[in-house]
Amino acid sequence: MKHIEDMAAQIRAGDRRALARAITLVESAREDHRTQALALIDTLRVSAPQALRIGLSGTPGVGKSTFIEGFGLHLTGQGLRVAVLAVDPSSTRSGGSILGDKTRMDLLSRDPNAFIRPSPSQSHLGGVARRTREAVTLCEAAGFDVVLIETVGVGQSETMVAEMSDIFVLLLAPAGGDELQGVKRGIMEIADLILVNKADGDLKPAAIRTQADYTGALRLLRKRAQDPKGFPKARIVSALTGLGLEEAWQDMQTLSDWRKEHGHWDARRKAQSVHWFEQAVRTGLLARISADKQASAAMQALAQDVADGTLSPDRAAAKMLDSLS
Amino acid sequence: MKHIEDMAAQIRAGDRRALARAITLVESAREDHRTQALALIDTLRVSAPQALRIGLSGTPGVGKSTFIEGFGLHLTGQGLRVAVLAVDPSSTRSGGSILGDKTRMDLLSRDPNAFIRPSPSQSHLGGVARRTREAVTLCEAAGFDVVLIETVGVGQSETMVAEMSDIFVLLLAPAGGDELQGVKRGIMEIADLILVNKADGDLKPAAIRTQADYTGALRLLRKRAQDPKGFPKARIVSALTGLGLEEAWQDMQTLSDWRKEHGHWDARRKAQSVHWFEQAVRTGLLARISADKQASAAMQALAQDVADGTLSPDRAAAKMLDSLS
Repeated sequence: MKHIEDMAAQIRAGDRRALARAITLVESAREDHRTQALALIDTLRVSAPQALRIGLSGTPGVGKSTFIEGFGLHLTGQGLRVAVLAVDPSSTRSGGSILGDKTRMDLLSRDPNAFIRPSPSQSHLGGVARRTREAVTLCEAAGFDVVLIETVGVGQSETMVAEMSDIFVLLLAPAGGDELQGVKRGIMEIADLILVNKADGDLKPAAIRTQADYTGALRLLRKRAQDPKGFPKARIVSALTGLGLEEAWQDMQTLSDWRKEHGHWDARRKAQSVHWFEQAVRTGLLARISADKQASAAMQALAQDVADGTLSPDRAAAKMLDSLS
Repeated sequence: MKHIEDMAAQIRAGDRRALARAITLVESAREDHRTQALALIDTLRVSAPQALRIGLSGTPGVGKSTFIEGFGLHLTGQGLRVAVLAVDPSSTRSGGSILGDKTRMDLLSRDPNAFIRPSPSQSHLGGVARRTREAVTLCEAAGFDVVLIETVGVGQSETMVAEMSDIFVLLLAPAGGDELQGVKRGIMEIADLILVNKADGDLKPAAIRTQADYTGALRLLRKRAQDPKGFPKARIVSALTGLGLEEAWQDMQTLSDWRKEHGHWDARRKAQSVHWFEQAVRTGLLARISADKQASAAMQALAQDVADGTLSPDRAAAKMLDSLS
């Protein structure tokens, strides 16, 4: 496909419009688009440079956009090229946040060394995952040094982003010590770095306390083979004043250098690829089954029984599954 | 099954131990347990009374446990029987929060008119959904007036809980107006009632501002057929002082009475049942495919190619899906 080879060459040459078009291509579910997207990824992944993939999670209110803007500008100020990909599987009905991602990161979005791609309006978590993984590959081929993958919430999307990142960062707001219990161990255990934001003005003492609380909590967790001494760690930052941004960046580099040296970096990327292969197979199988006409008819009849209250949802499902065996 | 009929009779008679045992049974994935659980649900759903199913979501730090304790005691104080079911699909690695749910709701857990069931340590969202739906049915059969289904986060688990609730409540902490943009429209659109907690002491002015902000934001959303005038609405509450708890309860009753009168209550429950039937079929199909030996072998070979970097995860998945057709 000549068209695909041209696109690949443009992306490798750093053409931002080509990159944006390519991400739109991988976001599409149309069959011909999927064929092209797979071919494009096949072409680009050969000898593509590796970016540092940083997963970043923070619930609404922690100042995530402000942090990404401040941190992103800090990196581009050092001559690094930064791509930001948003993952938001929660916007099931109308898609996207009330304000778009770009308007929330005004300076960074106008920086020639930065590339911000808002979350597509798509409800299907599997689709979001594939799109984001492929977009990461595209950004790496385009020569970005850092790919930030940001997500909201503490549910499945956090785990998903961790599964496609080299380093996972949890951004928190200052809080009272009694709120510590609210963070789940599952999330604590995937975090490599906890950053307590808003460590400025009146909130600074609370931020320091929160940092101390999480430092203590991290000690309760078992040591992971992939962590050098002192990690995972918690530190305070202020996106507003710039406090701690350089130190956080140093931490990320220390962590990634150590993991590369000790073989954990490669092992982690391999395991992640296998995980996503298995996920992609599952998603594909489900798409096929829902396209089967006889099965669809049986589904409809049983759905009617469920709606009428004749059968419980699970009893009806058991009948459906029996009919397929 | 005599055993199942006995258990059903005990649950209907209000035996809490039988209820707890039955929830353990529906949580099990063992095939004989599934058969028994389906039979139990078939027995109990016949002429079971309908509880008010309230979905409640709030991220860590909003004071959710304190709210549930305060609100739960407010309801039991009126002679109502309240069951609390926790849904937490985020604890993927080690399961459960650092402190158990019951220790966070000390008074309510000792109230004879309350029943609190912590989230099981289970990572699979589909499994959590089925378990919770079936537990709701068991609690309704046991005669609880209110079933509170609580969840954390803003991801898929929130949508899941909304899909099994009559009313969906979003609990928030007081925040500055600039943080309003952080709440996704998707979540705003499934919320029937937004409660701004911690409206006491120093935080009260901020809570009032937050309430005003969300009241304004709710006005931006299109009107839903299932809402009476004035809904969805935002109000301030304090789990600490009890402020607004009775008003919130009145709101929930107004809403559910109106929906029952206008046919939306039944329509919603029917649509939910059909949704869960379809989900249960999908989950069951996937379980089968992963048990197929030939497919497993092909999967393993392709996974090796992915790990070696020979194939991209999605190219390998495409090959796998082709081999199955």
